[in-house]
Amino acid sequence: MINIIVDAMGGDNAPDAIIDGCIEAINMKEGFNITLVGKSEIIDNNLSKKEFNRDRISIVNTTEVITGEDTPTKAIRSKKDSSMVVGMKLLKENKGDAFISAGNTGAIMTGALLIVGRIKGIDRPSLPALVPSKKDMVLIIDAGMNTVCRPINYLQFGIMGSIYMKLIYKKENPKVGLLNVGSEDAKGNDTIKQAFSILSSSKVNFVGNTEGNNIPGGDVDVAVCDGYVGNVALKLYEGAGSLFLGELKKIFTSNFFTKLCYLTLKPFFKNFKSKFDPDELAGAPVLGVNGLVIKSHGSSKAKTIRYAILNRAIPLIENGVVNEIKEQFKNMEVNSSDDKID
Amino acid sequence: MINIIVDAMGGDNAPDAIIDGCIEAINMKEGFNITLVGKSEIIDNNLSKKEFNRDRISIVNTTEVITGEDTPTKAIRSKKDSSMVVGMKLLKENKGDAFISAGNTGAIMTGALLIVGRIKGIDRPSLPALVPSKKDMVLIIDAGMNTVCRPINYLQFGIMGSIYMKLIYKKENPKVGLLNVGSEDAKGNDTIKQAFSILSSSKVNFVGNTEGNNIPGGDVDVAVCDGYVGNVALKLYEGAGSLFLGELKKIFTSNFFTKLCYLTLKPFFKNFKSKFDPDELAGAPVLGVNGLVIKSHGSSKAKTIRYAILNRAIPLIENGVVNEIKEQFKNMEVNSSDDKID
Repeated sequence: MINIIVDAMGGDNAPDAIIDGCIEAINMKEGFNITLVGKSEIIDNNLSKKEFNRDRISIVNTTEVITGEDTPTKAIRSKKDSSMVVGMKLLKENKGDAFISAGNTGAIMTGALLIVGRIKGIDRPSLPALVPSKKDMVLIIDAGMNTVCRPINYLQFGIMGSIYMKLIYKKENPKVGLLNVGSEDAKGNDTIKQAFSILSSSKVNFVGNTEGNNIPGGDVDVAVCDGYVGNVALKLYEGAGSLFLGELKKIFTSNFFTKLCYLTLKPFFKNFKSKFDPDELAGAPVLGVNGLVIKSHGSSKAKTIRYAILNRAIPLIENGVVNEIKEQFKNMEVNSSDDKID
Repeated sequence: MINIIVDAMGGDNAPDAIIDGCIEAINMKEGFNITLVGKSEIIDNNLSKKEFNRDRISIVNTTEVITGEDTPTKAIRSKKDSSMVVGMKLLKENKGDAFISAGNTGAIMTGALLIVGRIKGIDRPSLPALVPSKKDMVLIIDAGMNTVCRPINYLQFGIMGSIYMKLIYKKENPKVGLLNVGSEDAKGNDTIKQAFSILSSSKVNFVGNTEGNNIPGGDVDVAVCDGYVGNVALKLYEGAGSLFLGELKKIFTSNFFTKLCYLTLKPFFKNFKSKFDPDELAGAPVLGVNGLVIKSHGSSKAKTIRYAILNRAIPLIENGVVNEIKEQFKNMEVNSSDDKID
């Protein structure tokens, strides 16, 4: 039976929203259990008020909490009895198939590296982000974990991103583009140019440089970049979505007739809103570590956690994404001589 | 009298769309003249079919054209009788107050540097981009001219961006943010951290790090970044706009009732569409050179050129943006010891 370990104490709305999200997920789908890690008294108190199959949620008590103010490395090293550290150790010991947290992002990344550990052959694990496009979903990788990258990292991101899009979105041969300032070959700084050359001679389906507009345009399945560019791109996209929806709302609430229009159009907007719903898009796996660690938005609500469990964790587990990454890197010769910088 | 020099031969739709845009601008507003630079036979032939005040457009004949396929530096050095090189020389010789081209972007940048020349004290001129936000316009600087920047460049971008927003958008004390992966102080790579420190101790109204979503959010007036990040951000924003408008169009054309709704809502959408109209936003000045060089989209239509003249060139001339930049940098001590990276 699939078991998902959830950090009950991480995030702005923890623990209530986290626990509620777990119950919602349990009540919507069979075939998996949840281990909630955190202060058992608080968790018990919350659970006792809810209706759900009690056999499917177990609790592991912890006494400490890593907060948003904690320094990641220090927190992971010193708060040994925090919900995050204990949860990741359970994952490492195979007591669960995934670990989800909406807590301190830096601490999740650090814990994934220090506790769960890198997959052999992978230089830098990465946090990708799924975003909507005119066509299908596009994976931006890296979306913030690595602000400085070496050329070889871009190839590793491309390989991991391809596995993700192939197994989860059933893309037979995912198109990988290098996010750049122009589509011509010789664009960008030295690192980018070297990344271009490494990607060109690799086995990924590299389609060359790709520009910012090609992400919403859906011209690639995987956009590789460093975490600085990727993070700015991701957040700008989210901000643009929020701006557009806000402007639409203003228009629809202008007067009686526009409100009437909204009622007529509402069913058509369902798809549109769902496509750009940050809650539905939330929940990104740290790819390249020896287990499935999923980071959810710090501002996660119950609904966000439910999506992170049902739409992210379970498909990633069922499709064996972590194992496939291990498999591919086991057979690859990634050595530092491929890498002309550093 | 203001005189605007226009490259009649540059851009995908040149020369007809360029010439038409000039005539539209002339017919809409008094108080300025235009010098069209290009093959005079073609220009004359086009002009002879149109109605406008013939005294307001003069022609300078050139025999060569710099195309999109030309290598920028080589083209600027070898095509001495191209519309772009001759137009920029006219600007340099004070035969006009601005030069507008929709031609080869790299050649415009190179020509601006080599022919028009840098303002003293400015290390790297920059191409900014104006984008819409929830509140007012936001200036992304740099938006693609400099893919690699030194820390001091970010300060210079911040100063030039502040002058722009103050003189053109009447912001008394423009808020300058450093585009970064998080809002906390110690974020980003080494260059970014040094830029943060330089900006912090400068006279610009530096509000600290700003994230991608703060651009559509309108939380800053000026977002400084290198041209790689800025270009990806700008194009992603444009692509997101096009995606949203496309999805809306699909919804509105679904059936008879949705079309009826569109007719009701149309007047309310006018503002919305204008806010995100790439033609209205087109026309970016190269800031930091000794004259007003304005780059318009390669795909400029007549309307785009009209906006570049009326909404961009004329306000920039009337508000003396280039002179103000010269003035500010004359009094500044920008020396290389401020700069720890090279």
